[in-house]
Amino acid sequence: MPTDIVVDAMGSDKAPEPEVRGAVLAARQYDVRVHLVGPEDRLRPILRQALRGQRLPVFIVPASEWITMDDKAAQAVRSKRDSTMRVGLKMVREGRAAGFFTGGNTGAAMATAKMVLGMLSGVDRPALATILPTIKGVPSLLLDVGANVDCDPDNLVQFAVMGYMYAKNVLKIHNPKVGLLSIGEEDLKGNSLTRDTLPLLRALTSINFTGNVEGRDLFNGHTDVAVCDGFVGNVALKSIEGTAQLLSASLRESLKSTVTSQVGALLSRKAFAEFKKRLDYSEYGGAVLLGVRGVCIIGHGSSNEKAIMNGIRVAAEFAQAEVNSGIESSLRSS
Amino acid sequence: MPTDIVVDAMGSDKAPEPEVRGAVLAARQYDVRVHLVGPEDRLRPILRQALRGQRLPVFIVPASEWITMDDKAAQAVRSKRDSTMRVGLKMVREGRAAGFFTGGNTGAAMATAKMVLGMLSGVDRPALATILPTIKGVPSLLLDVGANVDCDPDNLVQFAVMGYMYAKNVLKIHNPKVGLLSIGEEDLKGNSLTRDTLPLLRALTSINFTGNVEGRDLFNGHTDVAVCDGFVGNVALKSIEGTAQLLSASLRESLKSTVTSQVGALLSRKAFAEFKKRLDYSEYGGAVLLGVRGVCIIGHGSSNEKAIMNGIRVAAEFAQAEVNSGIESSLRSS
Repeated sequence: MPTDIVVDAMGSDKAPEPEVRGAVLAARQYDVRVHLVGPEDRLRPILRQALRGQRLPVFIVPASEWITMDDKAAQAVRSKRDSTMRVGLKMVREGRAAGFFTGGNTGAAMATAKMVLGMLSGVDRPALATILPTIKGVPSLLLDVGANVDCDPDNLVQFAVMGYMYAKNVLKIHNPKVGLLSIGEEDLKGNSLTRDTLPLLRALTSINFTGNVEGRDLFNGHTDVAVCDGFVGNVALKSIEGTAQLLSASLRESLKSTVTSQVGALLSRKAFAEFKKRLDYSEYGGAVLLGVRGVCIIGHGSSNEKAIMNGIRVAAEFAQAEVNSGIESSLRSS
Repeated sequence: MPTDIVVDAMGSDKAPEPEVRGAVLAARQYDVRVHLVGPEDRLRPILRQALRGQRLPVFIVPASEWITMDDKAAQAVRSKRDSTMRVGLKMVREGRAAGFFTGGNTGAAMATAKMVLGMLSGVDRPALATILPTIKGVPSLLLDVGANVDCDPDNLVQFAVMGYMYAKNVLKIHNPKVGLLSIGEEDLKGNSLTRDTLPLLRALTSINFTGNVEGRDLFNGHTDVAVCDGFVGNVALKSIEGTAQLLSASLRESLKSTVTSQVGALLSRKAFAEFKKRLDYSEYGGAVLLGVRGVCIIGHGSSNEKAIMNGIRVAAEFAQAEVNSGIESSLRSS
């Protein structure tokens, strides 16, 4: 049976084109029915063109308002009562869709999801989880990357359980290793938050907790899930993105500097294309909001149609894996 | 007049060879006199060989003990009373040397420096500052990267003053821009520590504070100095290192994957060499411990002779710039 996924058609920087085309791509490739939320008069012609006469399960759900990247999240969530985000997430709450995807304002998406969907039982705060590539080829999961900046040990314990369940059931990693992001492997290394959290995590029997991990372990396969507060995770994520941008720019410049290199660059073009693909966040479809009562995926504002298609696929995989019931029963037993 | 720099000859992973050869390189290139601290019987033959009969101002200062990477910092600092670090830093305290360099145990070096040198007046805690490459070519400074994990707003204010003075006087950046590392540019973005710190930094007249900055600003030239607590900075630094390792490995693998790419790789070898050089921390000679009453540079354990040579150069530049008096007078007036 196809999975119903609802998409905020007005989320990304270039909305609604990438959303509509991504929805059509997803409906063509995966066993999904896609509901595009937005102004019908703008979506209809783009959808008609994208479908090229093909019959595919892509539908339009009208909404008259949308939240922009410039909107202040808290204010927009309150004032725009017919926003694409709110209309879309209500469909998830009412069981008319199994998951929601947006490429829009992250703060607004998190706030709307929290308000409309509510929290899973046993979870105090949601966490935004992002997938990182590793040297070993399997992805790793970093959370929280910005949903909650000031966390207490209980929040981090809940994040650990949520990350473990997601890595196991959606990323299909067998008994994923969960680490606490710190500044050294020894138990005594860390700040007051991580030192207070460590014994709680060690006492958990429902996950495979391995101890403290460091920033570099995000990429070398030593850990499958790294847990931290949203401030630390967000700083780390943006530092990672900055490093990748610097390295790409440096490499490009170095390659330009000699004639031989220019020839070399031409010949190794295929290799670079593959290299870029590895770093391409759009392959993973965006960040996952864990802890809310439903499925909510938040993509980059720069999402193109392929990223939207992947986001829809990830939302469907998340919904089918029934991660949320696993999180609730794990937290109940801990 | 040459600057006297004292070097822990037993610090790096492959000590004492890189230290001795690096000292000779530095004495040959720069206006410095280098004092190598360590067991005379081990250092003497290596020094004789490295000098190849040349007369250079490189001297041996005997010390019978040294702290290893496996030593627990606090314990080693207490128990090894004739350690190379302690003997070397005492020479700085007594005015017999203008600066100290070690490629050894960072925790032990920081603790010994704090104990032997004491703190600058107006500084409560030292900060470890590291230099990062940027897209624009000028370096940026990130501090603290691990000296103090739990900080209060006053600590961060002091770090900001120290970073500004170092960037201005040693990195020679004109009126360097100082930012507070956070998760968004707006004043309200951040955690409780950064939100409490921001107004204090805005009130400082002795530095060029520009507001919140993000992880990616470390590399794009939007800021010259980024200030954070040691936990956040250490996680960011290790995430950056992990990203660079991942990207290098991915690129190598991508290049191996096709015959054309192999040819391309051969031809663009020179470009890669330059690319790697850009990312090479050893160019910058290590991290700088700011806030202690003296000059202390802490290099990577993997430092080779070139990194040691650069570390000695940086120590001499730091000593000549008289950063510390600037920090004290700035903090007095704020």
